[in-house]
Amino acid sequence: MTERAVSDTANQQDTLHIEFEPVGRRGRCPRGMTLLQCAQQLGVSLSAVCNGNGTCGRCRVVLSSGTLSPATSSEHLQLTDKQLTDGIRLACQAIPETDCIIHIPPESLTTIQRTQVEGLQAIQRDDPPVVTHKVPVIAPSLSDVEGDVDRVTRTLAKLHGVACETADLEVIRATPSMLRENDWTVSASTRGKELIAVGPWPSNTLGLAVDLGTTKIAAYLLDMATGETLGMLGAMNPQIRFGEDVVTRMAHALTSPSGAEDLSSAAIGALNDMVTQLTQESGTDPARIVEAVVVGNTAMHHLLAGLPVAQLSRAPYVPAFRESMDIKARELGLHIAPGAYAHLLPNIAGFVGGDHVAMLLATQVANATAPVLAIDIGTNTEVCLAAHGHLTSASCASGPAFEGGHIRDGMRAAPGAIEHIDIEDGKVLLQVIDDAEPVGLCGSGILDGLATLLRHGIVDRMGRFNKNAPGVQIIDGKPEFVLVPSEQRNGKPALGLTQQDVRQLQLAKAAIETGIQALLAHASLAQDELSSVIVAGAFGTYIDLTSAIAIGMVPSLPLERFSQVGNAAGTGAKMALSSISMRNEARSIARATGYVELATSPDFMKRFVESTYLEPFPQNGG
Amino acid sequence: MTERAVSDTANQQDTLHIEFEPVGRRGRCPRGMTLLQCAQQLGVSLSAVCNGNGTCGRCRVVLSSGTLSPATSSEHLQLTDKQLTDGIRLACQAIPETDCIIHIPPESLTTIQRTQVEGLQAIQRDDPPVVTHKVPVIAPSLSDVEGDVDRVTRTLAKLHGVACETADLEVIRATPSMLRENDWTVSASTRGKELIAVGPWPSNTLGLAVDLGTTKIAAYLLDMATGETLGMLGAMNPQIRFGEDVVTRMAHALTSPSGAEDLSSAAIGALNDMVTQLTQESGTDPARIVEAVVVGNTAMHHLLAGLPVAQLSRAPYVPAFRESMDIKARELGLHIAPGAYAHLLPNIAGFVGGDHVAMLLATQVANATAPVLAIDIGTNTEVCLAAHGHLTSASCASGPAFEGGHIRDGMRAAPGAIEHIDIEDGKVLLQVIDDAEPVGLCGSGILDGLATLLRHGIVDRMGRFNKNAPGVQIIDGKPEFVLVPSEQRNGKPALGLTQQDVRQLQLAKAAIETGIQALLAHASLAQDELSSVIVAGAFGTYIDLTSAIAIGMVPSLPLERFSQVGNAAGTGAKMALSSISMRNEARSIARATGYVELATSPDFMKRFVESTYLEPFPQNGG
Repeated sequence: MTERAVSDTANQQDTLHIEFEPVGRRGRCPRGMTLLQCAQQLGVSLSAVCNGNGTCGRCRVVLSSGTLSPATSSEHLQLTDKQLTDGIRLACQAIPETDCIIHIPPESLTTIQRTQVEGLQAIQRDDPPVVTHKVPVIAPSLSDVEGDVDRVTRTLAKLHGVACETADLEVIRATPSMLRENDWTVSASTRGKELIAVGPWPSNTLGLAVDLGTTKIAAYLLDMATGETLGMLGAMNPQIRFGEDVVTRMAHALTSPSGAEDLSSAAIGALNDMVTQLTQESGTDPARIVEAVVVGNTAMHHLLAGLPVAQLSRAPYVPAFRESMDIKARELGLHIAPGAYAHLLPNIAGFVGGDHVAMLLATQVANATAPVLAIDIGTNTEVCLAAHGHLTSASCASGPAFEGGHIRDGMRAAPGAIEHIDIEDGKVLLQVIDDAEPVGLCGSGILDGLATLLRHGIVDRMGRFNKNAPGVQIIDGKPEFVLVPSEQRNGKPALGLTQQDVRQLQLAKAAIETGIQALLAHASLAQDELSSVIVAGAFGTYIDLTSAIAIGMVPSLPLERFSQVGNAAGTGAKMALSSISMRNEARSIARATGYVELATSPDFMKRFVESTYLEPFPQNGG
Repeated sequence: MTERAVSDTANQQDTLHIEFEPVGRRGRCPRGMTLLQCAQQLGVSLSAVCNGNGTCGRCRVVLSSGTLSPATSSEHLQLTDKQLTDGIRLACQAIPETDCIIHIPPESLTTIQRTQVEGLQAIQRDDPPVVTHKVPVIAPSLSDVEGDVDRVTRTLAKLHGVACETADLEVIRATPSMLRENDWTVSASTRGKELIAVGPWPSNTLGLAVDLGTTKIAAYLLDMATGETLGMLGAMNPQIRFGEDVVTRMAHALTSPSGAEDLSSAAIGALNDMVTQLTQESGTDPARIVEAVVVGNTAMHHLLAGLPVAQLSRAPYVPAFRESMDIKARELGLHIAPGAYAHLLPNIAGFVGGDHVAMLLATQVANATAPVLAIDIGTNTEVCLAAHGHLTSASCASGPAFEGGHIRDGMRAAPGAIEHIDIEDGKVLLQVIDDAEPVGLCGSGILDGLATLLRHGIVDRMGRFNKNAPGVQIIDGKPEFVLVPSEQRNGKPALGLTQQDVRQLQLAKAAIETGIQALLAHASLAQDELSSVIVAGAFGTYIDLTSAIAIGMVPSLPLERFSQVGNAAGTGAKMALSSISMRNEARSIARATGYVELATSPDFMKRFVESTYLEPFPQNGG
């Protein structure tokens, strides 16, 4: 069977399925291999300074599920009993005995791959926006009639040196019974000079970081005391029912009487559902979440916060507010601690929002010493060029094609999604997530498909099908390349890439290329002057860069100049959640980043049309 | 007719009715008298350094209604044409030609009387909590895509040096259309570093000061730029339907499922009605009110803000929160500028609240160099003794009797209320507000009545009626002193003071006396060591101090040691509305003021019972 070609090459009896998270690499490896060897086979670059001799202790991993060989004497030397009990192992020593899922902590990855890791590392923090202390107060008496909340703030000052001047109204309302029900000892959380939460829990309260994408939402639950990620969750943005792109959603907000409300409550509803699920999974209480950070593009930001979008949807496309915002979570309708704030990262311009700022914060592009290009691919793709001490960003309306939208057989990356495509000796090779029966194509598969068709002359640089090429069928008068024929799908329609799909992908790719070219031109930079290219976003993490270079979506540069960093916007949100200085840095980035409006550039249309050609970037870049 | 005896002494043809506001003195004066002479006749102490020669210019007054003689040459010398056109006159020169209402600005009163003036004077301020500036911004363009609100804050910084870091959510929501509808020029109000309002109005925005009493509410509308009082309004507190005193209301809040909500929404509803009326009268818009200050006793404060009262209603009677609070007005449900705050003054203890702090702030008792007693008489009466560098307060559950509550013919001070009572040569003399037909007794009339009955031996020091005294009738077996017989009221029941009324008044008076005695004892002070006694509150303003001394409600001291200062709590609220340093001073006062819990004092019951005797304070005070 065509679609099983890759996995069928290995004898399933003699192999085990090994999955490395959070990098997302998985596959079958021969029995008897160490985890380090498995990682190398699957393209995961684990640190191994001692070359696998069990002496450097760098290749530590954590067993998430499955069984490994017993710990070796090297491991007993390098690891404590507690660590071994917790499932921590050295990858060069441990040999899988069953299918395994292995968690790789960021410090065990080589530097290049470390940036790919999204989310699990503890965020270093010594200036958290919210601090929580255990506060035992003295019960009142007729000779000590100070107020309940005053007792808490006075004790905070006395025991912890925290100067609290105000208290949230809901906290004041809750404190009297909270004190009496908990024997006069509570956890008290302060934010600046405001008491924002009291509770019966231990002093490690929680934080919520959210990357609110146009199509997908990623949410992370953090321990505010340790910075550790306790849980993460992805979900589709339910605003999609009001439009797939931000322009359509803003039109809904402007034309329907309940439009703005529809959109904000859809987003808030999704966030509340995610909070419920994350806290249930962690066995905790939403009221223990004392701070949230939300990043999103400017339109998502405005629709979430109920800000007007009329001025954002018409030239000159200005935000209502560019600076960061601190909104009481209850005013947003977010069901976390009643006195908590949601911090919204600042925007740069009407179409370059806080998610881009978060990405720039996480990737530290502003500190680069040589020219760096950062691309966050999504339904809207933002590109930033850091060169000559300046940051300049542009926004590209790439649309949802690379996330599987508007592609006939497109789907999100889930079991059954074709994630890689190749043609070898005329035979179509498919890699399917979880080796399941294929049911559609996710973004990386779509990109691979297009590059493969191009490489094999099945479509030309104009995106036109060669109707005589093998595998091309004419259906309803239109050509289509079949990946899984109908007869292999129990009579269900064939899976393939259509002429219409190719057109959508050309437009998406052209939007991105145009943005990159405009920034290079703006900085008078040739593409090969770029020291590195950072590709962020869930889609960007999994794509085959060779394919992306082949169709001209990214500059034609040696592969080692690229790094695929995963959901950097989410990581930036977590950094901002954990640190006041990170928020200040985000503010500086937002203020310092220039914006290039593509549509007003004089040769925009010419450049866009040229960019629809499926071919690598022209060598003299800008 | 008995009830017209006072006014009948003057021939109505040859007199005019002259009323001085806001001191509230009114009466008939012979035609041809100057306003200065009228004032002297009615007991209003106008400044007159030149002894009425028209040369000092100190006795300036403002004609509110009626006609005065043409301006004299002295007036043309002392006043500008504009001032004369505005109705400003010299009292020593102007002669009423018709009935007149005359407004006396505080600076025209002698020092002693000046403290009686409630509310109309401009509050000196150079540190207002909210500042408003006219802000013209540059319209955005494709080459200038800064956010709308950022434009406002940037211009505020540039033109006015105001550093604004955050903006209220509702302000951000409103700003885009506000800018576009007003040709890119708006008024912007900032509070600290927060932008709290934008509007189309001139830069003098408004403030609201509220004295939220258990029985009555007083509200003042101020110009935040000048400190001037633009309007004032009194209303009954509609929470009365849930109980006349705070204990009953707290019980309602605790026992009825919607109890707390009933009480807060009743108070907020009344405030919103008052805002509507005040702004309509001033021809302005509630949205232009950018700050509110509310003072009230601790229970009123808690019920307004929706704070729990369970711990407040049981020993040791602690507030949920003692410190001042800044609550978004919209979170309270107060319909002023959406981004405005309501500032609630701090409380001292469970039964000594922010209204007492406001009174202490307004009377500057803390700065007294010799012992001062300040009494704020209301449904709950607070007393403060400043002596030896300490402030100590007590709360007395005096009940509503002196406000006309629980008194059979009691009523508030309105046309038809008997406000003064005397018996001369066996004839009952009544002074009725507006010389109307009498319909009841207001507080000052009730107090006068009791003192008069005592002086003439109609009741004894135990409060027992002498059933044989003239004017005493036995109705339903109980004695009653008749003020207006039924036959003079077209058959309606007689107006009078009953045995039950006297008992109520004894309890009220005893509560107050007990508090005063306890504070004197606490400071080891004799009453004659008090350098002055300040009597605050609406009731306290109008009472005849001789009567109050006679029944032992206030210390037996020479009249010149007393000052009746009107609604000092309201004045304190206005001071706090207008100045950050006044808020800081209020905080210092609240923290520095000690509290004496009367009920726990060992000889409380003995002292209380002794205080029910209707007789002057014992000479050795404490």
